[in-house]
Amino acid sequence: MNKESSTSKRSPLNIQSSQLSSQPEITIDGHTLRWPKFQIHNTTFEGQSYSVGDTCNVDSGLFVLYFLYRTDPDIADDILNARETSPYAILRKMFDLVDTEGWDAARIFCHPPLIIVDIVTPEEEDKYGRYKANDVRIRDVKRVLRVGSVNFIAHLKTKELMDTVKDAVNTLLGRKPTGPKVRYGIVAAGWITQAAFIPGVGQTSNSIITVLVSDDAEKRDKLGKEYNLKPYTYDQFSQALEDGHCDAFYIATPNNQHRKFAVPALEKGYHVLLEKPMEVTEEDCEAILAAQKKSGAKLMIAYRLHHEPGTLDVIDRVRKGDFGDPRIFSSIFTQDMKPENHRAKHGFDTGPIPDLGPYPINAVRNIFGLEPNEVTAIGFKTPGREFLQMEHDTISVTLRFPGDRMAQFVVGYASRPSEGYKIVGTGGEIEVNPSYGFGSGVKIAYKTKISGKEDSKTFPETDHFGGETEYFSECILNNVDPETDGEDGLLDVRVIVAIKESLKANGKTIKLEPHERKKRPTLDQAKTLSLGKAPKALIGRDSQKPTIA
Amino acid sequence: MNKESSTSKRSPLNIQSSQLSSQPEITIDGHTLRWPKFQIHNTTFEGQSYSVGDTCNVDSGLFVLYFLYRTDPDIADDILNARETSPYAILRKMFDLVDTEGWDAARIFCHPPLIIVDIVTPEEEDKYGRYKANDVRIRDVKRVLRVGSVNFIAHLKTKELMDTVKDAVNTLLGRKPTGPKVRYGIVAAGWITQAAFIPGVGQTSNSIITVLVSDDAEKRDKLGKEYNLKPYTYDQFSQALEDGHCDAFYIATPNNQHRKFAVPALEKGYHVLLEKPMEVTEEDCEAILAAQKKSGAKLMIAYRLHHEPGTLDVIDRVRKGDFGDPRIFSSIFTQDMKPENHRAKHGFDTGPIPDLGPYPINAVRNIFGLEPNEVTAIGFKTPGREFLQMEHDTISVTLRFPGDRMAQFVVGYASRPSEGYKIVGTGGEIEVNPSYGFGSGVKIAYKTKISGKEDSKTFPETDHFGGETEYFSECILNNVDPETDGEDGLLDVRVIVAIKESLKANGKTIKLEPHERKKRPTLDQAKTLSLGKAPKALIGRDSQKPTIA
Repeated sequence: MNKESSTSKRSPLNIQSSQLSSQPEITIDGHTLRWPKFQIHNTTFEGQSYSVGDTCNVDSGLFVLYFLYRTDPDIADDILNARETSPYAILRKMFDLVDTEGWDAARIFCHPPLIIVDIVTPEEEDKYGRYKANDVRIRDVKRVLRVGSVNFIAHLKTKELMDTVKDAVNTLLGRKPTGPKVRYGIVAAGWITQAAFIPGVGQTSNSIITVLVSDDAEKRDKLGKEYNLKPYTYDQFSQALEDGHCDAFYIATPNNQHRKFAVPALEKGYHVLLEKPMEVTEEDCEAILAAQKKSGAKLMIAYRLHHEPGTLDVIDRVRKGDFGDPRIFSSIFTQDMKPENHRAKHGFDTGPIPDLGPYPINAVRNIFGLEPNEVTAIGFKTPGREFLQMEHDTISVTLRFPGDRMAQFVVGYASRPSEGYKIVGTGGEIEVNPSYGFGSGVKIAYKTKISGKEDSKTFPETDHFGGETEYFSECILNNVDPETDGEDGLLDVRVIVAIKESLKANGKTIKLEPHERKKRPTLDQAKTLSLGKAPKALIGRDSQKPTIA
Repeated sequence: MNKESSTSKRSPLNIQSSQLSSQPEITIDGHTLRWPKFQIHNTTFEGQSYSVGDTCNVDSGLFVLYFLYRTDPDIADDILNARETSPYAILRKMFDLVDTEGWDAARIFCHPPLIIVDIVTPEEEDKYGRYKANDVRIRDVKRVLRVGSVNFIAHLKTKELMDTVKDAVNTLLGRKPTGPKVRYGIVAAGWITQAAFIPGVGQTSNSIITVLVSDDAEKRDKLGKEYNLKPYTYDQFSQALEDGHCDAFYIATPNNQHRKFAVPALEKGYHVLLEKPMEVTEEDCEAILAAQKKSGAKLMIAYRLHHEPGTLDVIDRVRKGDFGDPRIFSSIFTQDMKPENHRAKHGFDTGPIPDLGPYPINAVRNIFGLEPNEVTAIGFKTPGREFLQMEHDTISVTLRFPGDRMAQFVVGYASRPSEGYKIVGTGGEIEVNPSYGFGSGVKIAYKTKISGKEDSKTFPETDHFGGETEYFSECILNNVDPETDGEDGLLDVRVIVAIKESLKANGKTIKLEPHERKKRPTLDQAKTLSLGKAPKALIGRDSQKPTIA
């Protein structure tokens, strides 16, 4: 997509340039705007490249309101004519201050108790025209007041307030709107897509699949007909972005093609549910993150276990101290890779570390609530498995975490499938097995030992793919940032990259920069959709299960 | 003990020196002997230092027979007067050949179908006099014939034949005799001795404790009285060796004092049951092994799990291929070490690697039936556990085995106790938990998964200490080499030493020389003694359980 053309299409707003001409100009996502903020010294932003998505959400929201106030006569009327006792009188006073004293003074005067919630214009069909209708659901709303085509709400809790503001920004900037159900486009229709994602979406209440991007004519034809999907080839992806037959993409290409599809989709305002690992290099991940921040579209890495009740219970119990201070994490995750699968053929980057490593890596990072600072890896090559075209088909990894907590795990392609992890703390232990799998009959389960007393718990079989999609669609529809985001994905990839480096250096320990991540999985993310039925036959090339069960 | 004095005491045999004077002399364990073997070129022995214990057991046995034939007129008569159809006629022809053509020619002529079994002289009381009565039990005996004071047996299976020969050598050289029960002396009476070994011996049918060596006057007094033990201080150990109130020693001192007690005991012909790890350095282990080889006394490292039915079943199933080619071993073994225990106070050498490491190391070595060739270790130090006076209280280890099989394990002193191991192969997996513990309520158990089918097995609680002692006493009484011997102990210690070196070099991978060990645990070593009762109160210094349960 050409940004300029979309910008010209998207600029019907009647900016009263005379009112703003004294302000420096700034271009935000292709929109040339003027804002008093940039006139004054603001150490946060001065001299930096700037995107609405990067700034404080409250600022962005207020800026949206101000922008509307300056460009939409109806809204301006509502605000200007508000009674003195109305919350909107505060907004009016604030905007007066913006014009006279500058933006910072206005913010100090009016740390906003009221904010935009929802924009409900009738122009839903006008894709690149005026800002669009946005069916935002707000939890815990205390008071909603409609002014012109904008809903305002007073005394929202901070998180909802910020989400609301971001939503308004998204809408203003022409980001993807959503109907009652989020419409997904699939990019790549291999085994995981056909056997797990498509059936999973069928279990959700808020998601549908409307688009298929694949280079396999048979898949485009047969899947397109069976599920009523608009088909595109990979080369037609930019056209799919233009056409807008979906609101979000599920990208399940080989890892090294994630950036290629995720970046233009995010830049164009499409939400992206991206299979793990996020990409091959940290640079690739950062490019995807930058695209996401630029548009503010939502990005979630497909860590399906973040919505699986048993996994969340484990994380919750460990993090609340049921096993004391968690000190040790130990895990196995192996699969019996088939020779014909693409994962067997492309060296490290499709090998067990990127393919299986994210499970133990993501598990221990989120269970400890910490990021590792040292990575050591030893690689093994199994005789008789020469079809595994990689230097190492089995890898032993040791991680050091802050406070000298430790993790060790082994992943491999050259034995029977095995999984499970154990955490030992200063107050007890928990062993989880099955821990990583999904599908028919897989019930995540754990055993605990605290003060010598043993206990166990088995969780119901659920549709992990349906669960993650249901959750991501809720995030889109409610304008909430997903818990497992690009940062979560990047933090796994930097461990993967360090493992690669350690293997190349024959087991040298690789140091990582300290990093603190705020978001971690919480119990309320759990989804318990019953398992969707996988189709009898899978269609087209590379669509068979990659492993021997 | 002065070897010369014992030699002079031990030489009542009427050597007809005129018959042997043309042969070169050799001194074997203090006995000056002449043997035609050394007259001829034998690439196996020429120019090497020589001990009877080192040579082919058949050679030794035949040499014993020849020695007796040349020195005992009764035996010589029996052999010389044997009928032509008797197996002993073969022996006579052989000895003729020894005198005329040399030893090698004799061996080729007569690869022995008959051999000495048992020497039953009346001189049982004469400790340093003539060779002693030896109550050897031979399984699968086909034919036993008594000639003078020696039993011969024809057509024995190879193993029994060799054991029998070795027994005759031992007896000839005045090694420790045994009565119907092996009499043990205890060296060090800490927790493991009082809470586990003494009650365990009480469960055996073939072992008693008769001697206590301890520097704790209270232990010598109270335990001595309670169990009717002859008490000695550590300084009196050489006196205990002279006094001969026991046939074997159980040595359970701190690891770095194993050599100090094991070497003189073995040199003096006492059998030794030595707690693991064998010692601190490989050099120490080799000194112990050399002492054992010199006297031929029996040495067993106290790997109690080599006699636990569940563990043996695991080893047997893995080694016979129930899980395909075993590729991956993963294990945790942690304990919550008390600040006051000596293990907390002496750095690496009493830390988790020597103390707990032998469990996973010995397990994987014997399960794979292979010796590791690379060792990598990463150490961790737990905040708040400064009483653990060691650089690392938790250690992650990765081992590479031949065929690029791998093991990883973690051992530590700074979390709640945890144990277990898992093996994943090309045909399935087995998870063992509990795997390492002992005592009341500990039932070794495993779960398997083969072709998707899960199964499990729990083994009865047994007395591990009683089992290993029963087994070792059987070895002594039946003159069989124990399966877990000094080599097994040394092979663990060289891994421990490599871990120490790797930790010092910040996780550098340490290479080990290839080594092939022939002996591995087998199902017939299993013992199922019911658990002995630990005493209510433990006596004296350092006798409390070292860990928080």
